[in-house]
Amino acid sequence: MRLLAIDTATEACSAALWLDGALIERFEVAGRTHTEKLLPLVQALLAEAGIRPAQLDGLVAGIGPGSFAGVRIGVGLVKGLALGLDRPVAGISSLAMLAQAAIRGGAQRVLPCIDARMSEIYLGAYQRGGDGLAQSLQFDQVVPPEQADLSALAGDWTAVGTGWGSYDAILRQRLAKAPLSVDGSALPHAQDALLLALPLFQSGQALGADELAPAYLRDRVALTLVEQQAARAAKAAGA
Amino acid sequence: MRLLAIDTATEACSAALWLDGALIERFEVAGRTHTEKLLPLVQALLAEAGIRPAQLDGLVAGIGPGSFAGVRIGVGLVKGLALGLDRPVAGISSLAMLAQAAIRGGAQRVLPCIDARMSEIYLGAYQRGGDGLAQSLQFDQVVPPEQADLSALAGDWTAVGTGWGSYDAILRQRLAKAPLSVDGSALPHAQDALLLALPLFQSGQALGADELAPAYLRDRVALTLVEQQAARAAKAAGA
Repeated sequence: MRLLAIDTATEACSAALWLDGALIERFEVAGRTHTEKLLPLVQALLAEAGIRPAQLDGLVAGIGPGSFAGVRIGVGLVKGLALGLDRPVAGISSLAMLAQAAIRGGAQRVLPCIDARMSEIYLGAYQRGGDGLAQSLQFDQVVPPEQADLSALAGDWTAVGTGWGSYDAILRQRLAKAPLSVDGSALPHAQDALLLALPLFQSGQALGADELAPAYLRDRVALTLVEQQAARAAKAAGA
Repeated sequence: MRLLAIDTATEACSAALWLDGALIERFEVAGRTHTEKLLPLVQALLAEAGIRPAQLDGLVAGIGPGSFAGVRIGVGLVKGLALGLDRPVAGISSLAMLAQAAIRGGAQRVLPCIDARMSEIYLGAYQRGGDGLAQSLQFDQVVPPEQADLSALAGDWTAVGTGWGSYDAILRQRLAKAPLSVDGSALPHAQDALLLALPLFQSGQALGADELAPAYLRDRVALTLVEQQAARAAKAAGA
């Protein structure tokens, strides 16, 4: 089976290929330039593997949560590829991808957390399943870090993601026991989306291109118009 | 030649097919639901025409200016299609599309204007060329409506687009002569992107998928962090 995975949900931009058991990935921290970087990166990856898009059996998209703009770029590209090639797709959570990377590294229970801006975090709780894949223990959620409900999570946790980078002290206070380790700079990798998606393709649970949807978790892209007006008023008052 | 055009740069969502001279289009005013509506709309259009994506010779994207989120969705889908199918692409300005629709309706000189939110407009000036296609007379620009420089534009102009809907009185004041007509509700149609792109494909000027770029005109997606903080402070002060 040949699968291409793309993730642009955070400041990282990555693409990975699963080629009958072999896995290759290209990963860049792209900041706000996903639009320009993504396609050349995918093309370089395909060229490196010596395969054409038409040889792919399916496509995988990182669906967030993360940057709204980033998610749209990656999901849009995957939808277009899937429509053009008439292939099934699977969408994988950024938080699951972060957890999977930690599980690859040996972790058993992982708290992936992404800085969601506007003083909020995207937070999940995952454990290593019998198949070595990240299993979600609760719904991925968006909350202010000081309201994150971690008190029920006893035992040993591995903490990963930019949410820990931004709110380490606040989040530690809310855990019953200090995390085994904290990596506040971890970013999702497309290779983990591949690993998590593979069983979906193998069991016929992949989707049609039109069923793939972003996982925004929250609906507001930016400030409301009322808030923007207040900002303008505040600026004018300060000027 | 068979071309598919997609435009999601404004609150409208449309797709159109050029099939060796025949043109069909699907158009919806979709608001903020482009992500869900676009792909089913494209699939319905292809089904209506009885063609598969692999039978397309090229792809056309509305590249804005307009909604950043909307532009990304359409451009992302077109990039994915172009990569998957290995076909050339062309990007067409929303303002050119608005002008072309007016020219189809008989206009000679058109001032397309799209409400850019945050008290600004996207503005262009176009005339009917010898080939019946909209020719740009100046760069598409983003300006506050009260600073739009229209004073040098003598003669008769047809005014179209949501910018006129929002700022009719201000924009009229800045024109030497009242417009022949004003349609403040006009939205871009993918069929006009097709008409404008056709010569690019016929003359070999179409691009590779990785060369297609959005025309944002301005770089700020929303308020800056400083402005957001000011907004929060203003809200807190008002609460």
